[in-house]
Amino acid sequence: MNHPTSIAIEFENQNLQILDQQLLPHKETWLKIETVKDMILAIKALKVRGAPLIGVAAACALAQSALKGTSQTALLSEADELAEARPTAVNLMICVERMRKAILDRLNPQELYKVAIEIFIEDINLCEKISNNGNPFIKDGDNILTHCNAGALATAGIGTALGVIKRAHESGKKIHVYVDETRPLLQGGRLTAWEMEKAKIPYTLISDNMAGHLMSLGKINKAITGADRIAVNGDFANKIGTYSVAVLCKHHNIPFYVAAPYTTVDPQTPNGKLIPIEQRHESEVKGYGEAQWAPSKANVYNPSFDVTPAELVSAWILDKKAYTKSDIEKGVFKC
Amino acid sequence: MNHPTSIAIEFENQNLQILDQQLLPHKETWLKIETVKDMILAIKALKVRGAPLIGVAAACALAQSALKGTSQTALLSEADELAEARPTAVNLMICVERMRKAILDRLNPQELYKVAIEIFIEDINLCEKISNNGNPFIKDGDNILTHCNAGALATAGIGTALGVIKRAHESGKKIHVYVDETRPLLQGGRLTAWEMEKAKIPYTLISDNMAGHLMSLGKINKAITGADRIAVNGDFANKIGTYSVAVLCKHHNIPFYVAAPYTTVDPQTPNGKLIPIEQRHESEVKGYGEAQWAPSKANVYNPSFDVTPAELVSAWILDKKAYTKSDIEKGVFKC
Repeated sequence: MNHPTSIAIEFENQNLQILDQQLLPHKETWLKIETVKDMILAIKALKVRGAPLIGVAAACALAQSALKGTSQTALLSEADELAEARPTAVNLMICVERMRKAILDRLNPQELYKVAIEIFIEDINLCEKISNNGNPFIKDGDNILTHCNAGALATAGIGTALGVIKRAHESGKKIHVYVDETRPLLQGGRLTAWEMEKAKIPYTLISDNMAGHLMSLGKINKAITGADRIAVNGDFANKIGTYSVAVLCKHHNIPFYVAAPYTTVDPQTPNGKLIPIEQRHESEVKGYGEAQWAPSKANVYNPSFDVTPAELVSAWILDKKAYTKSDIEKGVFKC
Repeated sequence: MNHPTSIAIEFENQNLQILDQQLLPHKETWLKIETVKDMILAIKALKVRGAPLIGVAAACALAQSALKGTSQTALLSEADELAEARPTAVNLMICVERMRKAILDRLNPQELYKVAIEIFIEDINLCEKISNNGNPFIKDGDNILTHCNAGALATAGIGTALGVIKRAHESGKKIHVYVDETRPLLQGGRLTAWEMEKAKIPYTLISDNMAGHLMSLGKINKAITGADRIAVNGDFANKIGTYSVAVLCKHHNIPFYVAAPYTTVDPQTPNGKLIPIEQRHESEVKGYGEAQWAPSKANVYNPSFDVTPAELVSAWILDKKAYTKSDIEKGVFKC
């Protein structure tokens, strides 16, 4: 079996490691995962994050556990715990469900390992297809806003939104990327900026509240983000602040694209209002890590995601194709 | 002469001190100002900030210098340097201009001191009037968004936008304030949160990118900010991110108010496009203080202000009265 590689996760036999994304961009440290519990903690602490990547990571953790001799009953219970590690991204549930079915089918550890590697390789291929499908939307000279990180650090492959951007850059198009820092956990300022440097793509880091001003000056002409869950009607959840970007795009007549693999589509969720939104700890809004700048008693609201309605989306760039509003209305996300 | 008091600045004879706003909310430290140069450094470093307050602070610094025996020529040159300390807020230029005229009129140091104290007291009174004029716009049960800090820390008095909020609270209206943290320098998360706690007004601190989501959930029904410069046509500059708040309000049919004293109106600026926007240091966007989280070589854009066009404003709450769009069109800001 060919062992897939990724800049964010490594899995070969029992050796499972993730790049600790909390320490980026200043430290590139790999974290050894020994148990499913380790992986759950890493997912909750956003050491491994990004909707597609946590799906792959969860599948790998279950396969590792099987290789280590965990019983079928215990594996099923570990699958339940993994599926609940983060509530918004549906890829996690979908990948865990695939592993659960394989466990219920009494596949042996080597076969379960093979399923996880299939999921890993599939995610790499999905990213390639998304990047190719998105490339025609990017033109020479574009100034593209992105929010959070939907890159190689959010997937097992080249990325979704950043995959589209990288493919456009590889195609020789001269583009410039505006990177929202993405408070509170700064996935833009830390991770997307790091990926743009690695890919040598010209970029400018901004605070989230600067995007509107740049649009008003005509300095941004396109926006693209990833997604954590896409509902049947095209509404989607993504990192908090995505909705504001989409509203600002509408106000300035700027196209707004979402890029994601089919594993992000949830046929069980008819519309965005039904997507559960994870609430996170208040310390994330009161500061960043040890730098806590707000009054210690401050009351805080910290939703990790928001929902962007389909009406604000110009195209849904998936692995199969880039869908239009009329495709969505015809029900392409129903199954 | 009665000596006015403020929570942000103290001036009595040669004793001039400012509350160091960079150290808030964790430390309440008063910083002694000995020279005009000290004040310029404090203004540039945002140790003293807020459009009305830096106008008052500049006037006090010039009066202190006069009391210390500085010559007329040297005072005029100090006035020039002060006026250039920050380019966007017009109150600074207007207050320095008043002092310059008094210096040119060869007023003696005690008389110059009196002019500065007049400016100080006037700002306190302007805040009272703004707060009273704004109170009718706030209703029992309102959930009000504010951005940056336009409170007692931005003026010599009760504040402008926060003055309105405090007056509504004092009037017994049950209100809740959503405080944008206001990256990159976090005047919301540090200063407005601190003021809300002092005033015992219920508030919730959020990242700037959460306001849109809250509006979509119907949890915010009003927004109010201060201003750094208001153009004749009603466009105004304020802390970066204000424009995005105004666009989000428009999208959600939420009224957006701006509150400021007449010293913020610039009859020399016909429209917002002509307001100079201060660009600040890249380190502010790459992190906060010593916590630097972005790649060290990241290219950064850091405008300190943005411009909100008049069409997005529901009312301009000034000391004289609250103006409507039709008042503005009639030319009330022309002189």
